[in-house]
Amino acid sequence: MTASDALLTLPPVARPGDPLPAVDTPALLLDLDAFERNVRQMQAAADSAGVALRPHAKAHKCVTIAQAQMAAGAVGICCQKVSEAMPFVQAGIPDILISNEVVGAAKAGQLARLAGRTRLSVCVDHELQVEQLAQACEAAGSRLDVLVEINIGQDRCGVADADAVLRLIDALCQYPDTLRFKGLQAYQGALQHVRGVEARREAVQRATDRAAAVLQSLQAQGVVCETVTGGGTGSAAFDLGLGLYTELQPGSYVFMDADYGRNDVADEGLRFEHALLLASTVMSEGVGDRAVLDAGLKSLSAESGMPWVWEAGGRSPRWDYVSANDEHGLLQCRAPGSAKPALGTQVLLVPGHCDPTLNLHDQLVVHRQGRVEALWAIEARGLSR
Amino acid sequence: MTASDALLTLPPVARPGDPLPAVDTPALLLDLDAFERNVRQMQAAADSAGVALRPHAKAHKCVTIAQAQMAAGAVGICCQKVSEAMPFVQAGIPDILISNEVVGAAKAGQLARLAGRTRLSVCVDHELQVEQLAQACEAAGSRLDVLVEINIGQDRCGVADADAVLRLIDALCQYPDTLRFKGLQAYQGALQHVRGVEARREAVQRATDRAAAVLQSLQAQGVVCETVTGGGTGSAAFDLGLGLYTELQPGSYVFMDADYGRNDVADEGLRFEHALLLASTVMSEGVGDRAVLDAGLKSLSAESGMPWVWEAGGRSPRWDYVSANDEHGLLQCRAPGSAKPALGTQVLLVPGHCDPTLNLHDQLVVHRQGRVEALWAIEARGLSR
Repeated sequence: MTASDALLTLPPVARPGDPLPAVDTPALLLDLDAFERNVRQMQAAADSAGVALRPHAKAHKCVTIAQAQMAAGAVGICCQKVSEAMPFVQAGIPDILISNEVVGAAKAGQLARLAGRTRLSVCVDHELQVEQLAQACEAAGSRLDVLVEINIGQDRCGVADADAVLRLIDALCQYPDTLRFKGLQAYQGALQHVRGVEARREAVQRATDRAAAVLQSLQAQGVVCETVTGGGTGSAAFDLGLGLYTELQPGSYVFMDADYGRNDVADEGLRFEHALLLASTVMSEGVGDRAVLDAGLKSLSAESGMPWVWEAGGRSPRWDYVSANDEHGLLQCRAPGSAKPALGTQVLLVPGHCDPTLNLHDQLVVHRQGRVEALWAIEARGLSR
Repeated sequence: MTASDALLTLPPVARPGDPLPAVDTPALLLDLDAFERNVRQMQAAADSAGVALRPHAKAHKCVTIAQAQMAAGAVGICCQKVSEAMPFVQAGIPDILISNEVVGAAKAGQLARLAGRTRLSVCVDHELQVEQLAQACEAAGSRLDVLVEINIGQDRCGVADADAVLRLIDALCQYPDTLRFKGLQAYQGALQHVRGVEARREAVQRATDRAAAVLQSLQAQGVVCETVTGGGTGSAAFDLGLGLYTELQPGSYVFMDADYGRNDVADEGLRFEHALLLASTVMSEGVGDRAVLDAGLKSLSAESGMPWVWEAGGRSPRWDYVSANDEHGLLQCRAPGSAKPALGTQVLLVPGHCDPTLNLHDQLVVHRQGRVEALWAIEARGLSR
């Protein structure tokens, strides 16, 4: 490397051994101890319920995290896009569900080619997707397991009822050499964030009842659903007791964000720790009761609410992050006239919504007890095709 | 490349010569004809007002676009972060303003090292920043031009008045071998998006009056401000006539987004075209009057409002993008019961807010009259330090 090349290479955001205040900002931090406890807690809960765990990689997009989840006992991972799956296939993750519909020859073709390399499954909710997948698998000489997605109240993707599932199974049966019906996907995203425990429990029960009715109708007609997959971080504690799912696909539990932090949790429920923080710095003193941070919309996602300011292992009792501009964040004192953090101070934030926040960063600074251990690449950052 | 490598390399999103409907999605599209007209219009307006144009690269983060702006007559570019400037320095852009404060030894050091390679300037609003910049320049053997940022109503960064500017000029004068006072930055972001022409004109006048008062007070004390920089896409038409700025720093005008599209424009005002679109695809038929697109928060920024659906060169009269999930977007028919786009249809969107949307993508698919010409890298994507 010439001197000129070195000049134009950005120095690493942190080096192993650095104390956290030495990390350049903005930077995503992952507390390894809390992360490992989160991974173990979810796996243990799934194990004791006899339900398989297939964590969702859309939350983290990070091969090292997927490998940690597999080592803890996960049966595989979910990805939301074909391109997102590619770094995980490359890294040898042996079983990946594209928990989403895939349409178009380009995406079906790429999926079919990847299916020759690892065990892949995908969702459908229309015959056109089935045809495109079959053609792609025939061309690639590969096979895919296919789940039919059913709508259990999200009103996004998924078919309405058992009759529609049967029509898609008939379509799949046209292609026995390439496609195999594996079961159902039933996911309801909105209920994950119902705040009250009882209200969320009831919402989960309603969604589960819808799915169970479809499943029973299929069973009555002799259809075997080897897999019923769904669930998330907010519903998992209830899902595990309801007997619907053969596997759960939570994602955010490894990190926990401010949005999930606003959910109430039952005493006996799953209680995950805030393992993910964004390190920012006061880059201008600001006006009045406000200070200006160097982290805005290009470093965190604010569409599910503002991040929390984090101090001493909890939400700051004195400061709020109140506004996100493109490259700036405004921190405000909760009590007028109280002290602001000084210019140059590192301020830690719990991102409002982890999934799109991870998608803004190329790496995680992982640390244990205040010391940087490593940088983990976020390999699937930006892979949205 | 082995067959296995090829399998794990994502095919390009488009190839030169492809018609737009063949572009894989989600993908950012740039209409070269509209883009070039936007660049020419802003440059011509600045030229005829005798004001220098220093376009903001925070909007596009793309070296090829910066080069086009320079070729059209720009005096240089703005960047918002030190790391963001690096690909532009590497590409030989000869004059870059970091239109923001820089704090901390790491960032000051990197800036000072880059200053040995190209002409760089930076903003300050506190003596601590001045000291850190001076120390960094001394260590690097480089020099920096420095602008003092003044607060003209945004209440974010910037000092309050002429006395505070004078104190910072005194601080700069302690370091004559490394730092030089170049003038003022005066920027008001919020007024860029005041919708009505007269209301925006009045807001610009108020902000300009505040800046002019500081400038006059400094001039009365013998201070020469070689440069007064600021302004944006929403205010430029007014800024050019008010005599305050020696240079303007608009960014979004090259693209235009839905947020700027909601601004009214005077008959005699600057009228830019929507050159930037996001191509998405209907990936599920959806429920009722809704269809599901394959582009959500990981492909577009929704914090300044939803994207517009774009058809035949204008906003769709029949469909709205009404909700952005992480990887899905919900399209809704404006008239209940009317036809939805079919599964697999490519749907074009005008992003709600261009700056954070560009920051999600690694490339622009540039096209002319419906044919792909090239892929332009977004080199500064993710460079937020």
